[in-house]
Amino acid sequence: MTAKPHSALISPLQTARQLAAGFALTAVERDERGGTPKAERDALRQSGLLALSIPTRFGGLGAHWSETLNVVREFAKVDSSIAHVFGFHHLMLATVRLFARPEQWQPWFEQTARQNWFWGNALNPLDTRTVVKNLGGWREFSGKKSFCSGASDSQMLIASAVDESAGGKLLIAAIPSGRSGITLHNDWNNMGQRQTDSGSATFERVRVEESELLLDPGPLSTPFACLRPLIAQLTFTHLFLGIAEGAFEEARQYTLTETRPWHKSTVRDVRQDPYVLGHFGEFWVALEGVRLLVERAAERLDQAWAKGPDLSAEERGHLATAIATAKVAATRHGLELCSRLFEVTGARSTHASLRLDRYWRNLRTQTLHDPVDYKIHELGDWALNQALPIPTFYS
Amino acid sequence: MTAKPHSALISPLQTARQLAAGFALTAVERDERGGTPKAERDALRQSGLLALSIPTRFGGLGAHWSETLNVVREFAKVDSSIAHVFGFHHLMLATVRLFARPEQWQPWFEQTARQNWFWGNALNPLDTRTVVKNLGGWREFSGKKSFCSGASDSQMLIASAVDESAGGKLLIAAIPSGRSGITLHNDWNNMGQRQTDSGSATFERVRVEESELLLDPGPLSTPFACLRPLIAQLTFTHLFLGIAEGAFEEARQYTLTETRPWHKSTVRDVRQDPYVLGHFGEFWVALEGVRLLVERAAERLDQAWAKGPDLSAEERGHLATAIATAKVAATRHGLELCSRLFEVTGARSTHASLRLDRYWRNLRTQTLHDPVDYKIHELGDWALNQALPIPTFYS
Amino acid sequence: MTAKPHSALISPLQTARQLAAGFALTAVERDERGGTPKAERDALRQSGLLALSIPTRFGGLGAHWSETLNVVREFAKVDSSIAHVFGFHHLMLATVRLFARPEQWQPWFEQTARQNWFWGNALNPLDTRTVVKNLGGWREFSGKKSFCSGASDSQMLIASAVDESAGGKLLIAAIPSGRSGITLHNDWNNMGQRQTDSGSATFERVRVEESELLLDPGPLSTPFACLRPLIAQLTFTHLFLGIAEGAFEEARQYTLTETRPWHKSTVRDVRQDPYVLGHFGEFWVALEGVRLLVERAAERLDQAWAKGPDLSAEERGHLATAIATAKVAATRHGLELCSRLFEVTGARSTHASLRLDRYWRNLRTQTLHDPVDYKIHELGDWALNQALPIPTFYS
Amino acid sequence: MTAKPHSALISPLQTARQLAAGFALTAVERDERGGTPKAERDALRQSGLLALSIPTRFGGLGAHWSETLNVVREFAKVDSSIAHVFGFHHLMLATVRLFARPEQWQPWFEQTARQNWFWGNALNPLDTRTVVKNLGGWREFSGKKSFCSGASDSQMLIASAVDESAGGKLLIAAIPSGRSGITLHNDWNNMGQRQTDSGSATFERVRVEESELLLDPGPLSTPFACLRPLIAQLTFTHLFLGIAEGAFEEARQYTLTETRPWHKSTVRDVRQDPYVLGHFGEFWVALEGVRLLVERAAERLDQAWAKGPDLSAEERGHLATAIATAKVAATRHGLELCSRLFEVTGARSTHASLRLDRYWRNLRTQTLHDPVDYKIHELGDWALNQALPIPTFYS
Repeated sequence: MTAKPHSALISPLQTARQLAAGFALTAVERDERGGTPKAERDALRQSGLLALSIPTRFGGLGAHWSETLNVVREFAKVDSSIAHVFGFHHLMLATVRLFARPEQWQPWFEQTARQNWFWGNALNPLDTRTVVKNLGGWREFSGKKSFCSGASDSQMLIASAVDESAGGKLLIAAIPSGRSGITLHNDWNNMGQRQTDSGSATFERVRVEESELLLDPGPLSTPFACLRPLIAQLTFTHLFLGIAEGAFEEARQYTLTETRPWHKSTVRDVRQDPYVLGHFGEFWVALEGVRLLVERAAERLDQAWAKGPDLSAEERGHLATAIATAKVAATRHGLELCSRLFEVTGARSTHASLRLDRYWRNLRTQTLHDPVDYKIHELGDWALNQALPIPTFYS
Repeated sequence: MTAKPHSALISPLQTARQLAAGFALTAVERDERGGTPKAERDALRQSGLLALSIPTRFGGLGAHWSETLNVVREFAKVDSSIAHVFGFHHLMLATVRLFARPEQWQPWFEQTARQNWFWGNALNPLDTRTVVKNLGGWREFSGKKSFCSGASDSQMLIASAVDESAGGKLLIAAIPSGRSGITLHNDWNNMGQRQTDSGSATFERVRVEESELLLDPGPLSTPFACLRPLIAQLTFTHLFLGIAEGAFEEARQYTLTETRPWHKSTVRDVRQDPYVLGHFGEFWVALEGVRLLVERAAERLDQAWAKGPDLSAEERGHLATAIATAKVAATRHGLELCSRLFEVTGARSTHASLRLDRYWRNLRTQTLHDPVDYKIHELGDWALNQALPIPTFYS
Repeated sequence: MTAKPHSALISPLQTARQLAAGFALTAVERDERGGTPKAERDALRQSGLLALSIPTRFGGLGAHWSETLNVVREFAKVDSSIAHVFGFHHLMLATVRLFARPEQWQPWFEQTARQNWFWGNALNPLDTRTVVKNLGGWREFSGKKSFCSGASDSQMLIASAVDESAGGKLLIAAIPSGRSGITLHNDWNNMGQRQTDSGSATFERVRVEESELLLDPGPLSTPFACLRPLIAQLTFTHLFLGIAEGAFEEARQYTLTETRPWHKSTVRDVRQDPYVLGHFGEFWVALEGVRLLVERAAERLDQAWAKGPDLSAEERGHLATAIATAKVAATRHGLELCSRLFEVTGARSTHASLRLDRYWRNLRTQTLHDPVDYKIHELGDWALNQALPIPTFYS
Repeated sequence: MTAKPHSALISPLQTARQLAAGFALTAVERDERGGTPKAERDALRQSGLLALSIPTRFGGLGAHWSETLNVVREFAKVDSSIAHVFGFHHLMLATVRLFARPEQWQPWFEQTARQNWFWGNALNPLDTRTVVKNLGGWREFSGKKSFCSGASDSQMLIASAVDESAGGKLLIAAIPSGRSGITLHNDWNNMGQRQTDSGSATFERVRVEESELLLDPGPLSTPFACLRPLIAQLTFTHLFLGIAEGAFEEARQYTLTETRPWHKSTVRDVRQDPYVLGHFGEFWVALEGVRLLVERAAERLDQAWAKGPDLSAEERGHLATAIATAKVAATRHGLELCSRLFEVTGARSTHASLRLDRYWRNLRTQTLHDPVDYKIHELGDWALNQALPIPTFYS
């Protein structure tokens, strides 16, 4: 094992761009194929970017969240599946950072940085089929879990189980993905986000040690700990924006090089067609608005993160509304753009070799994570009643 | 050859519904597979519906256009590829009826009805790569042609070629699909309308007899002949509406049986969720408006068709605006519905086994046939300046 | 008493058009002034159109509802205040027809036809400030009532009061507007619908005879009686459509005669500007859809009305959804058109002498009668759950 | 008259807020009345804010453009007419600063600051009816001019005339409003922006000295001089945003204090109604996006202004796109909000005493200054072709 490609001279974003250029070459083919993007995951491991959000004192790159999320957005422009699992990897790291004791998360951070561990997700709190049994010194997780993004080909998993003996409390643990009793079914096959491995897992009497449980301070226990769902939401938002930006750029290139003016157009060059320019102008206005909302939210997350345990519930609440605002705008404008872009690229751009529909399919799929209607409802409660969102795993 | 399944007791629409029920069983699988839906095309042949628009005196079912188009819409609810090639088959029959002499089209009608011929399309007037050579007694077509919907597995083709010796005039002919020199490449592979076989064809010195040329009265020669592009446009419109209606119905069934209310909803049953009801209410309003516009346009087409050669340019123009209006509304509202429906069905409805995205993919693909922006432009010219559309192959 | 201007040779719609041409001349000025359009109300009286919906055997013109509502729409194109009070006059006649016994409404119908009575509204069921006292042989109404459209300058009033002794039951009566104790405050001053006199009234111990109470069959008592709120809703819908059509026509005329192309337009004549044509094309598509929805709903009302007491609850329910659908579409598309039209007419069209904003002000005001959100909710319940609307004074 | 109310302890924005609170008290009444808001203009004079954008070395407050424009936005929340003439006053100062020699504009700046001069506009470059005659030592302006915002009750005017002897070149001058031959017609009477005095003027042989002509460097002569139309456009944008923010705030207060839930709502308090919250959530998302776009554009204007004559054409072009983006977003979202707000405030909020329609009327009027369609076209040319806008008085 040797020199990582990101020397002091290459920024993480530059590294990400180089990787993205490679991912782009096979993105269409892999969208068709689905499954685990093993080569690309290994390239991520090699790049050192799995340590991007880990502080330098634990061997990481010490990036701010805004930087980490910008890499998510960069990947999403060409491959939103990889962007997703990459973002979730860092979300899992944030999860142990925020819910566990330093003597737990610090070694995990160090090992992740040293060994380029990839973390996956088996946390879905709305799926309560996995239960926990307390066997004295340890616990056993048993049951099923859906939507386990990035669990395949991971080294570590964040898993959750319901503790029926404690009134249905959600217990969360960080465990090696290879632990005995864990089966990942590699059964993800959806209309979009096709290489996120967001399939199902089965836990058969999986032993979980006390030291692996995220109990102190525990899930959503303090305003600072409550940043976890906000990081998740803002990761999605960067995904959405990246997808829309990628769609815009591909539509633009296609229009410039392939589209011909309609025979009734008064112009000879499609680049001057009034309706084509009208669409691009509207795409631009929408994208610029989303970009600023997303960038502001990321800046504010950096500020909130820097406050650590001093973060107040109110500060956390304001951050939540900034993120929700960006997310709603990215959802609405992104979907519109990804569907409407065909009106500039035209009939021939529907050829399957382009898979130009993947932007819409990916965005449509991922924007359903939690309903945009209730996100707007939440913002309405803020706008009208000045009520800040109550923290949950989705707010 | 014996009794056709549609006896006097079963209406064509009932026959279509029975067929559609069968098509629905495999529509998801065939959307994935692409290619030629051979079994379904044969079922159409067996059903007798290929003679639907043929007058009874030539052995057909003598349906009005509104009836034929309603069958297109019925098929489109479950399988818009089959709906497309079925609609185009009848459009090809209309083409010979309108552009050729009775001694030409009458035998074609009779044979189509008797032998259940399937007609395919190789007419695309914007693709000028196929040229014609006049060899005295006959002509030779040579070159390529794109977007040949329904040409595969057809018995007859409508093909066009540019006559450079006549100033680039478009010659149209009806020829057997199996004629020597014709190669259908079966290369259609698009993001939507995946079983329409809208791929490319090559003509290598294909001999075309004088009696196969549609010269009298010839393409777009009279107001009545100019109904041809309007039948094409209204066929698309029925496709669009059928797709939207199918999407609505599947979204409805899925919501009623599968969707759970969001955990922040104040209702226990998703069927009472205010936002879910809001979406369905808006879907309904949009669909109802489109339905009436489409049905009015079809009625008017029946009236125009009944006038035959007495149809005036002005009457044809008013029909054109009625069809364009319906088409724009079906395009806009259909796309919105097919993308937004996921906001009621939710995250789990993105599973590939449902292929619920096919409605959007099919509609998005087919609505690009000719640009909606220029259709709106045409209607603006009518609305503001009372200028009726000038007949072309797209207006 | 002499010849009415609508002889057998002039249809009511023609009469209405003649009247409308006159109303148009002063509509701008009267929009500014507000108050009661006395001269125009008298012209309506003279025209005989106040008897339009009254059956011929009672001396009326025997129009179907679709005809009466078309007159509302015709007036609304130039003056939606007059259209409103004219429509409400016929709604009041429908109210006595549906809620009272023949020996009550027949004389009222006859006198209305003979003496050109104008009926006004003081029914608002959501305003419960007017209460009733039972004094044995008669009742006394006392209290206030808001939104009394068309009460000023009327001969007859439909008034309602809450009967607290009967659990808050709503009592409705038809009484002469001039009866002792009734004060109409002429205090309507709103941003739109400025000549509808929809102000407040005070009842001070107003004596109401038993024979004036609409008790048999009573309000909303049978499916047929439940047509009353549907006639109200469909009257509004015709108002909305008429306003939008009037706005379209004025925008069109202004554009043709006054608007100049923007200096960056590639065309010399604004009539060919691609964006201007785009707006008009979209206005047209929207208007056409609304027109068909409105016309269908009116036809169905005619059919339902013709059934009389045989009308079933289900038939009434289907009519309710048809009307609600038309109303939502007219609301949404109308508001959009009335606000967007300025983008074709341009900056100079904001001059107060044109009062081109009155279309938006009138429509915005009247569309708030009952919330469009809950009308869509109602339609969602139908579209998703096939639940027909439960009759109320708003559904 | 001495001490100005804004001591070192009160920021200009605080001063503006105090003034705005006063303006708000009479805004409704003055919207009805129209005409010149003399008292309010005098209060502006007294406040010292007419010197806001003037550098301190000339006796002004030395504010950045972003600060000056924030005051425009603050005024626009309660009174967009005053905001308009206040913004235009500073635009006129920018005009002399950018188009004239220091020995011209410096004394004008000093006198404006010392004497609280109010500047008005008579520049409209699209109105070419005013022509210039060269009489050797001086010029004479003769003709008419429309849209002279803020000219009434002003001390100084920026006027333009066409020099036919120089091929129709536009000459611009700064002259005392009271100069002999100038007649301001006080004839502004429009549906919105009713107290902007944007009426017409007549010039009858008005003598203009050489020293009053803005010739060096002259209009739109350098990239820096080309900031002038951008300041105009960004002033409008702040107006639009301020109007929308004012509308939002009034809708919010009204809803909280006056609106009652619809009788079919499942909640008792309108503040929890799902549709009301949905509207407010969407208003919020739209406003937040516009706010960020507007604030970014203002920051960039500050940077461009600071560069002075070093500003490159490309830098100016990028600023132009940032401003155009903000303007389009503010136009679209603002109009939507100002029309839709009534769906939360309800029927009673249409009472004329509230004049809640003034937000829409003001915004609708002002957004027509130059067509949003061509602004989007311009942005499309940037987004698709990377073509920066060519400077004109509107770009």
